[in-house]
Amino acid sequence: MNPNIIFRQLFDEKSWTYTYILADIETREALIIDPVRDKIDRDLKLIAELWITLTHILDTHIHADHITWSGLLREKTGAKIAMWEWAHIAKPDMMLADWEIFSVGDIKVRAISTPWHTDGCTSYFIWDMLFTGDTLLIRKTGRTDFQWGSAEQLYDSIQNKIYVLPNSTKIYSGHDYTGQTMSTIWEEKSYNTRIKNTTTLVEFIDTMQAVNLDYPKYIDIALTANMQLGIYNNQK
Amino acid sequence: MNPNIIFRQLFDEKSWTYTYILADIETREALIIDPVRDKIDRDLKLIAELWITLTHILDTHIHADHITWSGLLREKTGAKIAMWEWAHIAKPDMMLADWEIFSVGDIKVRAISTPWHTDGCTSYFIWDMLFTGDTLLIRKTGRTDFQWGSAEQLYDSIQNKIYVLPNSTKIYSGHDYTGQTMSTIWEEKSYNTRIKNTTTLVEFIDTMQAVNLDYPKYIDIALTANMQLGIYNNQK
Repeated sequence: MNPNIIFRQLFDEKSWTYTYILADIETREALIIDPVRDKIDRDLKLIAELWITLTHILDTHIHADHITWSGLLREKTGAKIAMWEWAHIAKPDMMLADWEIFSVGDIKVRAISTPWHTDGCTSYFIWDMLFTGDTLLIRKTGRTDFQWGSAEQLYDSIQNKIYVLPNSTKIYSGHDYTGQTMSTIWEEKSYNTRIKNTTTLVEFIDTMQAVNLDYPKYIDIALTANMQLGIYNNQK
Repeated sequence: MNPNIIFRQLFDEKSWTYTYILADIETREALIIDPVRDKIDRDLKLIAELWITLTHILDTHIHADHITWSGLLREKTGAKIAMWEWAHIAKPDMMLADWEIFSVGDIKVRAISTPWHTDGCTSYFIWDMLFTGDTLLIRKTGRTDFQWGSAEQLYDSIQNKIYVLPNSTKIYSGHDYTGQTMSTIWEEKSYNTRIKNTTTLVEFIDTMQAVNLDYPKYIDIALTANMQLGIYNNQK
């Protein structure tokens, strides 16, 4: 990891979501990835304690398992919400093109579009770290059976946009349900249970068709809320 | 972090314990800190996947909230159990003196005795990281009201053995109940709610006397088991 970056991984025990805060150690400009609404107090406190200024808010996708606090956070901090142009989000401040780079202090952030766990899924590549949201999980992938999911397109995203990155790239995912906090591209190419670098498209489609998961508990509330940046029914 | 170190933080959701695995990227020799018995399969799988060889097993102290799997792990891997000489542990392979350094591949590990959450509490200093167990938690400290605890001695350990380390030293604690995964010496000196670098001994004793926590749910089983390295009642 670049020594000039402050890096924090944060965990929400209710949805098992990882939130990330990164900041330029010199300019103190900071970004947050996948903030969780229930953790607003913890995150704002930490941002104040670290003497950093939030300038950018990123969601990797429209989450179905928790409510983002991007909208509220923008109100409280004035930070910009950046989203890939395909995401179904109301009123972002920056519309990112695929492969676009933007700066947070001296931190260069590359947005890589990686659908289709959802059609707006975006991964963020910073230094030697890739923040994959639910596209690539540790030893798994996101599901493709709701929210405009597509196993074909997810295969293309992982094989042709993620597995082509350096093997040593660190993977920081949106969740892990076994208590792991990170992985690497090499590990996922070797050990991912759904898609290794040798997995064919036909094998992956078969695998994803056999995945049998419950309807997500919070999806009906979360999707509607998250398309409005977590501000819904006038609740704040 | 030293780029020649493989570093993994792992989480146990039942006891909210953090386990750590570190390995020399060249020699593949590895150590584990505070392994949790329920997670034996996950940890052994990861060790195999990373092509690393476990040579050292460390517990920061005799845990009261979970059962270690040090003993079983030694049986399965042949790794050595290292403990500070004051810890009440049956049959360690290496008895560490305070401030002793030992090597795991090219990784230098310094054992620093930091009682008295328990009298055998040990912190491990590796590169720019300090693994503090329950001595220093993120914005808190371990409790001192059981297991031979002493607020006076804990104050001495934190002020005179931990807060004297470089401000940028990363703190990796045994638990965090807010979802934070790390801190730094500077942050704890500035923001710890029980002991800042300006806190006096009298203030700290008052604070610790006011801490009112439940009797730990697993302590009666865990202490007995952990003093035997997690092997008890012939259970394996």
